[in-house]
Amino acid sequence: MYRVVDLITKKRDGERLTKDEINFIINGYVDGSIPDYQVSALLMAIYYNPLDDNEIWALTDAMLKSGEQIDLSKITGIKVDKHSTGGVGDKTSLVIGPIVAAAGVKIAKMSGRGLGHTGGTLDKLESIPGCTIEIDGKDFIKQVNEIGLAIIGQTANITPADKKLYALRDVTATVDSIGLIASSIMSKKLASGADHIVLDVKVGSGAFMKNLEEATTLAETMVKIGKNVGRETVAVMTDMEQPLGNAVGNSLEVIEAIETLKGNGPKDFTELCKVLASEILLIAKIAKDVKEAETIVDDIIRSGKGLEKLKEMISYQHGNPEVINDYSLFKQASEEIELIYLDEEDAYVDHIDALMIGEAAMNLGAGRATKEDVVDHSVGIVLHKKVGDKVSKNDSLATIYANDLGVEVASNMVMEAYQMSKKPTSTPKVILKIVR
Amino acid sequence: MYRVVDLITKKRDGERLTKDEINFIINGYVDGSIPDYQVSALLMAIYYNPLDDNEIWALTDAMLKSGEQIDLSKITGIKVDKHSTGGVGDKTSLVIGPIVAAAGVKIAKMSGRGLGHTGGTLDKLESIPGCTIEIDGKDFIKQVNEIGLAIIGQTANITPADKKLYALRDVTATVDSIGLIASSIMSKKLASGADHIVLDVKVGSGAFMKNLEEATTLAETMVKIGKNVGRETVAVMTDMEQPLGNAVGNSLEVIEAIETLKGNGPKDFTELCKVLASEILLIAKIAKDVKEAETIVDDIIRSGKGLEKLKEMISYQHGNPEVINDYSLFKQASEEIELIYLDEEDAYVDHIDALMIGEAAMNLGAGRATKEDVVDHSVGIVLHKKVGDKVSKNDSLATIYANDLGVEVASNMVMEAYQMSKKPTSTPKVILKIVR
Repeated sequence: MYRVVDLITKKRDGERLTKDEINFIINGYVDGSIPDYQVSALLMAIYYNPLDDNEIWALTDAMLKSGEQIDLSKITGIKVDKHSTGGVGDKTSLVIGPIVAAAGVKIAKMSGRGLGHTGGTLDKLESIPGCTIEIDGKDFIKQVNEIGLAIIGQTANITPADKKLYALRDVTATVDSIGLIASSIMSKKLASGADHIVLDVKVGSGAFMKNLEEATTLAETMVKIGKNVGRETVAVMTDMEQPLGNAVGNSLEVIEAIETLKGNGPKDFTELCKVLASEILLIAKIAKDVKEAETIVDDIIRSGKGLEKLKEMISYQHGNPEVINDYSLFKQASEEIELIYLDEEDAYVDHIDALMIGEAAMNLGAGRATKEDVVDHSVGIVLHKKVGDKVSKNDSLATIYANDLGVEVASNMVMEAYQMSKKPTSTPKVILKIVR
Repeated sequence: MYRVVDLITKKRDGERLTKDEINFIINGYVDGSIPDYQVSALLMAIYYNPLDDNEIWALTDAMLKSGEQIDLSKITGIKVDKHSTGGVGDKTSLVIGPIVAAAGVKIAKMSGRGLGHTGGTLDKLESIPGCTIEIDGKDFIKQVNEIGLAIIGQTANITPADKKLYALRDVTATVDSIGLIASSIMSKKLASGADHIVLDVKVGSGAFMKNLEEATTLAETMVKIGKNVGRETVAVMTDMEQPLGNAVGNSLEVIEAIETLKGNGPKDFTELCKVLASEILLIAKIAKDVKEAETIVDDIIRSGKGLEKLKEMISYQHGNPEVINDYSLFKQASEEIELIYLDEEDAYVDHIDALMIGEAAMNLGAGRATKEDVVDHSVGIVLHKKVGDKVSKNDSLATIYANDLGVEVASNMVMEAYQMSKKPTSTPKVILKIVR
């Protein structure tokens, strides 16, 4: 076989690793025969000498094959997966899933629990009284066949190589590499078994990709990987210069998702959901062009079919579907604090630091810093002013929902996250670019 | 304190680490609070963003202070240390030590056991019947005060940080970095307690530094580190395009060292010993200029005072001093194989691959591949033709001394190490440059 140090040297010196060499490294890393310290040195060499298309594909394939691959063949129809690179206030799955399922697409989503600013989709669902994400494989398939939609916790051991690599990258400053990010995301998506994939690539100061140029490179790389194995893949690049929508925090975000399905969602969030849903309908060949897709999506929202689909999913997953009409059924926070703008002079919101808003929500208990943390589903932040909005004295910028924990810190962070301008500012575009 | 991942990111992005940050990393690495995998990622970042002078000094100082520092203050007179970056056939310590000690310099040398092509100086000494390198600190000081010379095994735990770092660099392709090499060598030399340091930096295909330019950078870096703490440091860059001298293998090299002290050494090896010895006399201010130093060295060899000093050291270290007159007292190899040049046409030696000669000697049992290997002191190779020499049919290129083990492999390697030219070749210069 190979000597690992020779492979590190090869990559260090700008040469290309072969498929066999990459397989050797990934397999050895997973089985423990290659230690962390050699892999982290290799990762840093990759940081400086980015992987090319062949290496990216070989790495994706090796990680994909390192674990279980989900078999969705018993689900009839076109299965589409949607993935977001992660942002603050992102509850799109709860809106898009019901809409496209109502249009006939099959959404069989298995999510992992994330760490970070706010809970992931699983935590949001669990904020609904009774709702479970622990459903076994057979019931999961049955649910998707019957209602077209299920979002459950990932129990299969998919891409263990990626898990191990990602944990290592996180502590060795080797996360920021397009090839490594693309293969990490796509190996998981390919292992999840959907026919086609729609990616929401967040761009901006609140996202991992800070500018459109690098986001485009990442998007193109991922689309290429998907096409390479015959899975149609589309990447939508979307703004993350401020939090998405108004609500940040688990039940608050579910309520915002419900409102959006009722046609009353925040403008930016609604637009994003419609575009992503349309892309899913296009990729699933349910609509023949963008215009038709948008019409279908609008009809589903207007007719309440989307809302009905969410209600159905909640029922199937043992949750109380009445939350859709009665938000008081959610666990309530004990305190509501208004953050008031007190300056005499009018101003315009110029920027809202999304990461700081996310951190503020974390401080209230809405997210997990470590795997063992317990999430408080009721706490969070609702923004009343977004970038481009005019603010006058005594306007509320945001409401904080809290249960004693972290109120002061969170309040200060939210106030600090708002950057004001005396001159009018413009509302940022939500959809920046689509890579097909 | 610091987050290690932030420090890796900082270095990765081309910024400079402060003295405090470097101390934090080295101390944490030695005490186990910082894991290998973070350090190896940092080392790879350093490979791409070389350490500057301040960082190199901080790293040297941190490694120096990570372990014991030898106190030679009870030795009267000027203590000088000589260090070679390592080459095949390098037995200079056995010649230079006696010469400069005879001139009044104090040589208190503690060596570590090396791995690699041939045994280190300690193994060479142990090939002398009875000779020990295990002498305790008090007797060591006494011996140096009485006869000016002792070469013993290192028992103190000097620079544990360097040991740990070096082992990691070796398996992560992060050895080749001037700053890391310089701080590794100099931290050990500074911890060894000598007043001044003479460095023999080997250059060429058989050495770690492949060309004079990078060797010069390394030499200048090390000289700067030494001067920074008031230790005069001189670096002599010497040729390692072929093995040094003729003998490779422990007792064979001791015999060659004795012959050199008798004035009968190989031309290249003799020249190198004289230059290094002269530099030591200059740095110790025993000679006022190069000419005077060379005269002293020549006198010491001619008068037999150098040979007498070696004899004295062997006696003090419980060895049989009669080996100096009777080489049959060394353990003898059971086989001698002549490697004969059989081509009809005359040729000239164009190149001798030093690493391959070293590997050949290893195959015979002359060196250690792992710490646990037992060295056979009697085996090795004596070259009869060096670069620039003319070779005719039936000339012996080299003699192999063996005890059954590895004869065929070694013979093939030695033959392969010789590259011949039909056109006359020139004898390479031994001394390439001196950095003071």
